[in-house]
Amino acid sequence: MTGAWSASVLTLFPEMFPGPLGVSLAGRALEAGLWRLEAVDIRGFARDKHRSVDDTPAGGGPGMVMRADVVAAAVDAVHPQGDPRPLIYLSPRGRPLTQARVRELAAGPGVALLCGRFEGLDQRVIEARQMEEISLGDFVLSGGEPAALALLDAVIRLLPGVMGKEASGEDESFESGLLEYPHYTRPQSFEDREIPPVLTSGDHAKVKAWRRERAEETTRQRRPDLWEKFLKGRT
Amino acid sequence: MTGAWSASVLTLFPEMFPGPLGVSLAGRALEAGLWRLEAVDIRGFARDKHRSVDDTPAGGGPGMVMRADVVAAAVDAVHPQGDPRPLIYLSPRGRPLTQARVRELAAGPGVALLCGRFEGLDQRVIEARQMEEISLGDFVLSGGEPAALALLDAVIRLLPGVMGKEASGEDESFESGLLEYPHYTRPQSFEDREIPPVLTSGDHAKVKAWRRERAEETTRQRRPDLWEKFLKGRT
Repeated sequence: MTGAWSASVLTLFPEMFPGPLGVSLAGRALEAGLWRLEAVDIRGFARDKHRSVDDTPAGGGPGMVMRADVVAAAVDAVHPQGDPRPLIYLSPRGRPLTQARVRELAAGPGVALLCGRFEGLDQRVIEARQMEEISLGDFVLSGGEPAALALLDAVIRLLPGVMGKEASGEDESFESGLLEYPHYTRPQSFEDREIPPVLTSGDHAKVKAWRRERAEETTRQRRPDLWEKFLKGRT
Repeated sequence: MTGAWSASVLTLFPEMFPGPLGVSLAGRALEAGLWRLEAVDIRGFARDKHRSVDDTPAGGGPGMVMRADVVAAAVDAVHPQGDPRPLIYLSPRGRPLTQARVRELAAGPGVALLCGRFEGLDQRVIEARQMEEISLGDFVLSGGEPAALALLDAVIRLLPGVMGKEASGEDESFESGLLEYPHYTRPQSFEDREIPPVLTSGDHAKVKAWRRERAEETTRQRRPDLWEKFLKGRT
């Protein structure tokens, strides 16, 4: 149990965790001790009697900003100096999450995730605690919590013992720099649409070539940005 | 209530919903009737006595594929012909979610979201039901559910009445094509780091200019891809 991959989540809404991660693949793995989760309430580190964690933005503007001193106290309690786990602040200003970063996180000891709310964190605590800023994508959430859930889900499925050998995650989108090929299964005919004959030919080399072509075609059509990177990586 | 923005989620794990969306901003809005949510179990549309929803992939390979006929039956029950809501399949093969698409969804009548599990859906039902495929980002989840939760969170905060006027979402990342400027709040001094003097100068024009410069600088440094788009949009 001691060595299990360990996630600490700093949040104003600890009741959101494990949430969906308590069900299905991640939930069974949590129960089996393949990973650990603590959700820590940032409000517990407020210093005044109103337990305030935020204040108005310096320079004016809408919303509220999370205080550097309160966040620093919470971070230092959960992620003390020397903690080998990366400290990640989930923010639309961060670097977009990639499958490569997910793999790195899964190979490490765990992660400490800080979920912002309101307009965000005071910039000084981000710098003082050298947080890595990661964004889920180019959209804005009400807080970091849905991003933390998605990031943890992506990592947990890659931890040893979580997925069976059957679904090793080797053959899927982004692993080869391409989107995945399309899938088919029984029935043979669905609303007059047939499974492509090559897939039921029994010719493994042809199946492999067909899938590769479809993966390349899909990537080229849907994600010219990925396709360009893929071509560069090949030369 | 009848006119409220309406989300239908097709999933093998309806117990994951509302989950984090039952708390905080989205949760209060749900309780107030500003949006509606139904989570529908795809397994209820299985046709055999084992209630199977998946089968082995045609052509071989790891994992299981969700059957076209079962998914079609579930989709047709929840999103019949003429339903004005977009039907979205959450998949790493889709177009990446953007704040522009989030805004469009918030301006519409609602959404029907299909969450895949296992290796994914039989391609034929995606085509036959003309699903829009959306990806949360370039990483792989255990299923569409965490992506559905994040997408809904992003949309719900933009629905009328959900956020106060104070936090209108106008000033934030991606709305102008730039990442947001950094935030500061009290205390004035945090671990010998001061709030940048311009922000407490009371000179609104200077504050605005400083924030704009920081937003441009941050975008240029962290997201050359966004910065390039931003420059193109300006010419």
